[in-house]
Amino acid sequence: MAESRKRIRLVTPIVTEGFRTGDDLGPLVGPDTEVSVAQIVTGPASIESELDEALAVPDTLRLLQEAEREGVGAVVIDCMGDPGLKAAREIVSIPVLGPAETSMHLAAMLGHRFSVVTVMDRIVPMFENSARLYGVAEKLASVRSVEIPVLDLERDPERLVEALVEESRRAIEEDGAHVIIFGCTGMLGCAARVEEGLLAAGRPGVPVIDPVPAALRVAAALLDLGLTQSKLTYPAPPAKRIVGFPWAEPAGMGAAS
Amino acid sequence: MAESRKRIRLVTPIVTEGFRTGDDLGPLVGPDTEVSVAQIVTGPASIESELDEALAVPDTLRLLQEAEREGVGAVVIDCMGDPGLKAAREIVSIPVLGPAETSMHLAAMLGHRFSVVTVMDRIVPMFENSARLYGVAEKLASVRSVEIPVLDLERDPERLVEALVEESRRAIEEDGAHVIIFGCTGMLGCAARVEEGLLAAGRPGVPVIDPVPAALRVAAALLDLGLTQSKLTYPAPPAKRIVGFPWAEPAGMGAAS
Amino acid sequence: MAESRKRIRLVTPIVTEGFRTGDDLGPLVGPDTEVSVAQIVTGPASIESELDEALAVPDTLRLLQEAEREGVGAVVIDCMGDPGLKAAREIVSIPVLGPAETSMHLAAMLGHRFSVVTVMDRIVPMFENSARLYGVAEKLASVRSVEIPVLDLERDPERLVEALVEESRRAIEEDGAHVIIFGCTGMLGCAARVEEGLLAAGRPGVPVIDPVPAALRVAAALLDLGLTQSKLTYPAPPAKRIVGFPWAEPAGMGAAS
Amino acid sequence: MAESRKRIRLVTPIVTEGFRTGDDLGPLVGPDTEVSVAQIVTGPASIESELDEALAVPDTLRLLQEAEREGVGAVVIDCMGDPGLKAAREIVSIPVLGPAETSMHLAAMLGHRFSVVTVMDRIVPMFENSARLYGVAEKLASVRSVEIPVLDLERDPERLVEALVEESRRAIEEDGAHVIIFGCTGMLGCAARVEEGLLAAGRPGVPVIDPVPAALRVAAALLDLGLTQSKLTYPAPPAKRIVGFPWAEPAGMGAAS
Amino acid sequence: MAESRKRIRLVTPIVTEGFRTGDDLGPLVGPDTEVSVAQIVTGPASIESELDEALAVPDTLRLLQEAEREGVGAVVIDCMGDPGLKAAREIVSIPVLGPAETSMHLAAMLGHRFSVVTVMDRIVPMFENSARLYGVAEKLASVRSVEIPVLDLERDPERLVEALVEESRRAIEEDGAHVIIFGCTGMLGCAARVEEGLLAAGRPGVPVIDPVPAALRVAAALLDLGLTQSKLTYPAPPAKRIVGFPWAEPAGMGAAS
Amino acid sequence: MAESRKRIRLVTPIVTEGFRTGDDLGPLVGPDTEVSVAQIVTGPASIESELDEALAVPDTLRLLQEAEREGVGAVVIDCMGDPGLKAAREIVSIPVLGPAETSMHLAAMLGHRFSVVTVMDRIVPMFENSARLYGVAEKLASVRSVEIPVLDLERDPERLVEALVEESRRAIEEDGAHVIIFGCTGMLGCAARVEEGLLAAGRPGVPVIDPVPAALRVAAALLDLGLTQSKLTYPAPPAKRIVGFPWAEPAGMGAAS
Repeated sequence: MAESRKRIRLVTPIVTEGFRTGDDLGPLVGPDTEVSVAQIVTGPASIESELDEALAVPDTLRLLQEAEREGVGAVVIDCMGDPGLKAAREIVSIPVLGPAETSMHLAAMLGHRFSVVTVMDRIVPMFENSARLYGVAEKLASVRSVEIPVLDLERDPERLVEALVEESRRAIEEDGAHVIIFGCTGMLGCAARVEEGLLAAGRPGVPVIDPVPAALRVAAALLDLGLTQSKLTYPAPPAKRIVGFPWAEPAGMGAAS
Repeated sequence: MAESRKRIRLVTPIVTEGFRTGDDLGPLVGPDTEVSVAQIVTGPASIESELDEALAVPDTLRLLQEAEREGVGAVVIDCMGDPGLKAAREIVSIPVLGPAETSMHLAAMLGHRFSVVTVMDRIVPMFENSARLYGVAEKLASVRSVEIPVLDLERDPERLVEALVEESRRAIEEDGAHVIIFGCTGMLGCAARVEEGLLAAGRPGVPVIDPVPAALRVAAALLDLGLTQSKLTYPAPPAKRIVGFPWAEPAGMGAAS
Repeated sequence: MAESRKRIRLVTPIVTEGFRTGDDLGPLVGPDTEVSVAQIVTGPASIESELDEALAVPDTLRLLQEAEREGVGAVVIDCMGDPGLKAAREIVSIPVLGPAETSMHLAAMLGHRFSVVTVMDRIVPMFENSARLYGVAEKLASVRSVEIPVLDLERDPERLVEALVEESRRAIEEDGAHVIIFGCTGMLGCAARVEEGLLAAGRPGVPVIDPVPAALRVAAALLDLGLTQSKLTYPAPPAKRIVGFPWAEPAGMGAAS
Repeated sequence: MAESRKRIRLVTPIVTEGFRTGDDLGPLVGPDTEVSVAQIVTGPASIESELDEALAVPDTLRLLQEAEREGVGAVVIDCMGDPGLKAAREIVSIPVLGPAETSMHLAAMLGHRFSVVTVMDRIVPMFENSARLYGVAEKLASVRSVEIPVLDLERDPERLVEALVEESRRAIEEDGAHVIIFGCTGMLGCAARVEEGLLAAGRPGVPVIDPVPAALRVAAALLDLGLTQSKLTYPAPPAKRIVGFPWAEPAGMGAAS
Repeated sequence: MAESRKRIRLVTPIVTEGFRTGDDLGPLVGPDTEVSVAQIVTGPASIESELDEALAVPDTLRLLQEAEREGVGAVVIDCMGDPGLKAAREIVSIPVLGPAETSMHLAAMLGHRFSVVTVMDRIVPMFENSARLYGVAEKLASVRSVEIPVLDLERDPERLVEALVEESRRAIEEDGAHVIIFGCTGMLGCAARVEEGLLAAGRPGVPVIDPVPAALRVAAALLDLGLTQSKLTYPAPPAKRIVGFPWAEPAGMGAAS
Repeated sequence: MAESRKRIRLVTPIVTEGFRTGDDLGPLVGPDTEVSVAQIVTGPASIESELDEALAVPDTLRLLQEAEREGVGAVVIDCMGDPGLKAAREIVSIPVLGPAETSMHLAAMLGHRFSVVTVMDRIVPMFENSARLYGVAEKLASVRSVEIPVLDLERDPERLVEALVEESRRAIEEDGAHVIIFGCTGMLGCAARVEEGLLAAGRPGVPVIDPVPAALRVAAALLDLGLTQSKLTYPAPPAKRIVGFPWAEPAGMGAAS
């Protein structure tokens, strides 16, 4: 439970450069934590389908293994699909956090029910499935979308915030949400303005969870507590022949034998 | 609803050669159905972890796309983890079946509760998660394992059948199972002997579901019925830049634009 | 797993003549399957209440017993209430299928959530109860009705299809359905036109399940697989004195002693 | 909410004479309630299967209709399968109670979880299904059986009580039950001795619910409260041609038109 | 199971005088039951928040202990928050009933789903939590409110009844409720008029449960049946030092040692 | 999201002096957090029943109000019953955390299922109820106890650790737990030794959650994130007359008007 400087890695599972830089993250963590970033080199430009997620996973896992080797203390996967979360937890011993899983559990603590406001209608079932797997389906009021593709989120920040406020308001009034979670890590940094927008719309006191900062802070808390994922749920994979992913072969996976 | 000869592809998501041949499948389908096989070339030797499954998915999806292009009518994924099932259903229009999902729904129809008897204890949570996602968690009595790795299943068929009978008997007597599902497609062909073993152990009348034949037959039924997965659940992925998986790029994914 | 010609019996649990003839079914099954029909002689003219269902069951069970004696391979009960399904499975060893149970499990495989569109509002709770008993309540988006009594379904097929399209569309847009199931076997044959209607309404790619063909095809698949209901769930009834149903008395129920 | 003498009918859905007489019931109700009995004339000698239950229902429903015509205030069905409960509630306006439904809800009020101790293992799934339908599945700890057929229950009352105590004790110690429900109305009158037996076995303070008295008392309470089943759940059946059950035809079902 | 005159105590957990008098209750119980009232002297003027409920509990428990000492046979807590229900059941052996728990189980018996119509929107989550704890969440259609504070309920009875009819109608038409429960014991006596209002609005046959009479009648039924809460769920508290609540100290809690 | 020194108050809801001192907490928090302690003066010596919890709540709430007035940033309630959690969240705006709620959500993130190992069997249902209310019942494997009263926990630390290891081991092997939560805040400081004991018993890699440090760290994370409970779930209570709790009267509850 040492209080030395904590090192957390944010692994971004898309190949689009410039989407995430260390600069985004400075204000999100305290002086006792250092956040580094890494990004996959094979995979999709953004994640908006089960296909995108599937193709993002292998290189994400490589970066996880690398992070542990470099002595990083914990990893946060930078996507609300939590791509590769379960496999990642098998191959490393350091805590791996998904922003969706973390945000949903925080939201469940903060209010009666929560809604997720995401980018596109087409991925609504993915969040409903996640809530089931994470054991919090009863607390999920709804999943709504702003219908703005991931890579367009930064084009018109005003429009994004307006759409987030509008869908959050509808989640509250029509679906019974008491807490809002952003459904894409590309919405980073909008929480304060969405809370203000809700206040202006007559809905004060509604927590809005920005998943990346939330996951980074909970990752730091786990480090302080000396906690990591259970090896009964996530045992190291059996060593075996693997073709096409050299980092995952037995030689590479020292811990797995 | 034409009754012409149906073509079904079995896609085996492991790189171990000789694991599955067309010869295995002859007796499993009727004269009106032709089953072809295809096997991934990058990925793991067997699937016994979340890691294995994650690395098997990309090449499995490539084979799915190929199958549809070749005019195959339906595809069955040859692994009880149903790897890539959801992404596969996005990228093709022909029915894609997972043996786990299909067997669980058949089992739910045939009896009050079912158990899965799989290869290794370490993947028990994966089946419990699948049952939740497929909406049949209430019907799952238990998941048990014979503790024989996938690639050892064929080494001692006698021992395999004995272990399957023993764990099935315990599932019935200790967990309340009324139907048994094999938890690995490598157990293909053992159902009749396990039913006999259960009869000898004083447990007649217990259906034992062999997942590959079950999925092939249900795939044929879907073809006859003209049914396939819903495009509301599995819309075609948005076309975008994808690095490292040329078959998945917009040029390759004609249907996605 | 013989591929000889399969014999399936459709047992219609209403006394109205002309409702179901073998002619309806020709196009529904392949050349390797023969479907015969039988109809109860005591019971209601149609099934639109718990009372109707209760009075339909005894004679339905008599026909089940008769079907097995005549060497039929499997039976489908021709009503979405699945009347007598559980008792039928006790008294015979051949597979007995209910179109509601079968359609709900198929629908659960094909999409995220399904809706049932039935004849009358008053039987909505019956479907919600069925979904609970069959273990798929989580996958049920809603039950809607066209408000056309069973025996009027054939009077104005245009109106029926229009109403089915309209309620299916509302199930999709208001309730989140991704798959549609017809909630009355009297709607037989309308699936293609309803899919077209949904396409015209801007909702392509939505599977519409016609329960009788679905149950017949799955029955054929079970025959091919050598599977039938579990005798742990459906043990033969103890032989005992029974008044008023001679076919059910111990002399008649050879298998039950 | 008149306090005049209440009239309740106990309808016994088996044809075995002498199983239930008015004499059994004298001590069970107060001086302000009169309990009459009626018994079916077609149906099974006892109810120990889905078949038995199905064949008991039609004549049970006839007796329900008769009870309402005779001015009886409420009816209790004398079997833990609650046979015909839903159809009965459609055809009459007076409250109809099932002892299983009533006991399960009382038990849910009295303790954290309850178990049912019934006659035969083979009907365990029937109780689990009932608990699901009645909405109290979460409160059901287990269903156990004494393995004594219904018609043998009275042969050796000592043995019956011993077996009930033993299975109740195991339900408490192994399954976490805090309340016990008798799973057959033929166990009437044993509750006090089973509570004593549990006390002697070191388990004081465990309520043991005798379903027939419980249902009679709750029926009386409903009469005093002026409450009956909802006609939204149980609307009167549409009038229609019915063959073989003259009492159920439109002429007979005045209320249904 | 003696039929002597039953004594039931209604404990009102608010300090507002005149809210509840014995006169209210005369018509609610039969000649064989005597209802006495008691009211707390420390606590809130009304219960409309978790805070109010928490502050009402200690003195409510003192009155429970007093009731048992005075030989009362059963106690009903006069608030739909069921404040102190679980602790009360620990400290006495006589049956303690909460009107919310009792009404929800009665409602679950009478129809497919029920709604609660309460005073204020702000306590909606409290009822949803209660339904979960009582094990009947699946039967809860919705919780609605008339937005009239507790202490204003009696000011304009006409407006109250109108608002109850309106919200009940919406619960039926929009939420699928088949039974209505009043969500505040201050609505006592309005059930008949609300049923009439629903009839006038075209919704006949909908049971409306008035929780205090319902709980009193079920309390009387439990007394007649000799049933009380399970001491496995509600064991007597261990004797220990308690500061500030002299009645709860070991000397006072004779039964707890 | 200022990184100034955070102030967190631990409110101990029992009157036993010496149970909790600031000294316990030094090592639990980092240099950027200051933890102060406060203890109730009316209430029970320890919390081992619903009664104890009910009597602890009012003075706990007074301390919550005081903490907010004193400018404390967040409060953790020092008991695994989370006494007063919901009411506390109504009366203050700063985050209030219960160690049970927080630990259960952390545990749900770290593994497939968790068990709670608490002091006494008699409070097992309280944890099962909490898990339901917190929405994580599906993740709860079991609740076990060491059968050592709260105030005896410190008498024989060796015996306590041994008992915790033994019950944790049984939770893993018999109930399927993958994560362990201490079920009493009096077990503070034993987590490392229990993990070692599990390792020695052949069960490495099992997270053991010590609830007070866990809640303190998550409280600090919420402060850093600027998040607090939703005012839609926990609105300020309406101002009203309250007798016996002067701090809670309208004059005292400035925020509530």
